Amino acid sequence: DPKLKIFSLSSNRPLAEKIAADVGVELGTLSSSQFSDGEIKINIDESIRGCHVYVIQSTSSPVNDHLMELLIMIDALKRASAKTINIVLPYYGYARQDRKAQSREPITAKLVANMITQAGADRLLTLDMHAPQIQGFFDIPVDHLLGAPLLASYFLDHEVLHDDVVVVSPDHGGVTRARKLAEFIKAPIAIIDKRRPKANVAEVMNIIGNVEGKKCILIDDMIDTAGTITLAAQALQDAGALDVYACCTHAVLSGPAMDRINNSVIKELIVTDSINIPAEKVSDKIVQVSVSQLIAEAIKRIHENRSVSPLFQEKFV
Amino acid sequence: DPKLKIFSLSSNRPLAEKIAADVGVELGTLSSSQFSDGEIKINIDESIRGCHVYVIQSTSSPVNDHLMELLIMIDALKRASAKTINIVLPYYGYARQDRKAQSREPITAKLVANMITQAGADRLLTLDMHAPQIQGFFDIPVDHLLGAPLLASYFLDHEVLHDDVVVVSPDHGGVTRARKLAEFIKAPIAIIDKRRPKANVAEVMNIIGNVEGKKCILIDDMIDTAGTITLAAQALQDAGALDVYACCTHAVLSGPAMDRINNSVIKELIVTDSINIPAEKVSDKIVQVSVSQLIAEAIKRIHENRSVSPLFQEKFV
Ligand SMILES: Nc1ncnc2c1ncn2[C@@H]1O[C@H](COP(=O)(O)O)[C@@H](O)[C@H]1O
Ligand SMILES: Nc1ncnc2c1ncn2[C@@H]1O[C@H](COP(=O)(O)O)[C@@H](O)[C@H]1O
Repeated sequence: DPKLKIFSLSSNRPLAEKIAADVGVELGTLSSSQFSDGEIKINIDESIRGCHVYVIQSTSSPVNDHLMELLIMIDALKRASAKTINIVLPYYGYARQDRKAQSREPITAKLVANMITQAGADRLLTLDMHAPQIQGFFDIPVDHLLGAPLLASYFLDHEVLHDDVVVVSPDHGGVTRARKLAEFIKAPIAIIDKRRPKANVAEVMNIIGNVEGKKCILIDDMIDTAGTITLAAQALQDAGALDVYACCTHAVLSGPAMDRINNSVIKELIVTDSINIPAEKVSDKIVQVSVSQLIAEAIKRIHENRSVSPLFQEKFV
Repeated sequence: DPKLKIFSLSSNRPLAEKIAADVGVELGTLSSSQFSDGEIKINIDESIRGCHVYVIQSTSSPVNDHLMELLIMIDALKRASAKTINIVLPYYGYARQDRKAQSREPITAKLVANMITQAGADRLLTLDMHAPQIQGFFDIPVDHLLGAPLLASYFLDHEVLHDDVVVVSPDHGGVTRARKLAEFIKAPIAIIDKRRPKANVAEVMNIIGNVEGKKCILIDDMIDTAGTITLAAQALQDAGALDVYACCTHAVLSGPAMDRINNSVIKELIVTDSINIPAEKVSDKIVQVSVSQLIAEAIKRIHENRSVSPLFQEKFV
């Protein structure tokens, strides 16, 4: 029976260590470093011939370095006769560039899909892709896990959040995600409806649904500069919300994000560890829940040829 | 007749501007920037439908960013219906990772070749690849220009270097390159032969050929940390060389390079502008000769369906 091996690249070693522990294996040994001129040098330090190899990497910032490290690793595994190369990408970078919004734009999410496949990956396991359509950019099997059940389990564990709660989508694009969370925690939903009354006039935030006197939980797939989420939180507060919580799967947290969150009315921000949060960004307001068990369970099922169906996630609630 | 357009990405805009001027066109307009999280965003600002497009980019440091910018540009050009996409890569990054020296190593130079081709490039024009075999990593046409004639023309222009000159290869791998330069400037060659008498003993540099009382010109394809070249220069001085010059096509100049060069016996280092040298690295000892006319002539010939033969380079001497 071919062996299962898990390797961690450099974007999120803490998560990879947890995943390996949850699967019940040691992480494979590997050296990944840079030459003096910044070129990446990878050496796999143990035989992987005939093995089913899982590589854990998030293409978070610095995205180009993390992506290239992943591709070089795939190349090395292929040439070292791995039986299958399975890429675990808790966070899929460049996912927002998934369509031509204007003429002469690239579709970088598709370019990345091609690069991963053509380097030699056999399968992809990922979590809350910005658009589920990106699965169709691949001609190899893609397993797409959802973060909502995990985030839900956090709220279900906190008694204060059992009553008078409403799940809020910060925009129309996020309603399906908000509904999913609302179903899990058995709460109603509300939607923030942004409208610009006329050109060059500030946007007005209308709230569809009842939030007055309620504990609101804003949900998004990712929080990047935190502009949308902190403005939405303020709008909810202005509309009489009792408390505002926010949650997301991917804590991108770039640029002004931490200042905005720390200065906002958001009481707590619940995120997963799909992206490693550097120490200087950790704040009292941020709570992390780990995707490690979810991913470990998916890896075990893939290795045993069992289905990673959406249903299976209910056990994490 | 389909139009020729030249675009510059961000690694070497000064060279791209010279090339465009030498071809006799304006550079195409393009915006390439980064989102807050570091993802690259490219927008081509003019129609290129049906055009023969040339993209100038060196995959110098930061190599992963420059490579990804190139691939995203190719993706955008392809989707915007360019007739042909011609990549001008004055410096090919990752070229030293061109073979498996140990088990379980990647061959990143081939990975890069695949990435460029599969993104949609139709043709590659490059200069002094670390190993000419890398041409065979591509299934699209590759034109391979040589830097030696250009460097030779610099020495031929300096009367002091017409007599009592010897061209020196810093190692056995570079002898062909040294011979090429020696032919152009009609000088003899010498070779530095490094031997480690036994393990854990410093290398001894033997010089094959006569350098005593001569003006020596060391030549290499690239100078990265400048360890090899400065040690070689010292060995020549110790062997009684009158003056030591050095030259290379690609001025990688990473880490300790500038300190080593400035503190070395090297009198002058002649390099090309295949890699843009940032202001803080410019030193009195460094002389740059431009590859712009050579590349411009090659672009014109490709556009006119004429051969870019090695012979053609003689006119630059
Ligand atoms: N890394 C990024 N940071 C910020 N915005 C981005 C990024 N990548 C793509 N976008 C933009 O985000 C929009 C897509 O987001 P969405 O409408 O939420 O799918 C497009 O207008 C993209 O130009
Ligand atoms: N960016 C780099 N910087 C320094 N050494 C490198 C780099 N890339 C590859 N190498 C090493 O350089 C050697 C190949 O150089 P060469 O023998 O001159 O072809 C191999 O041992 C590589 O591991």
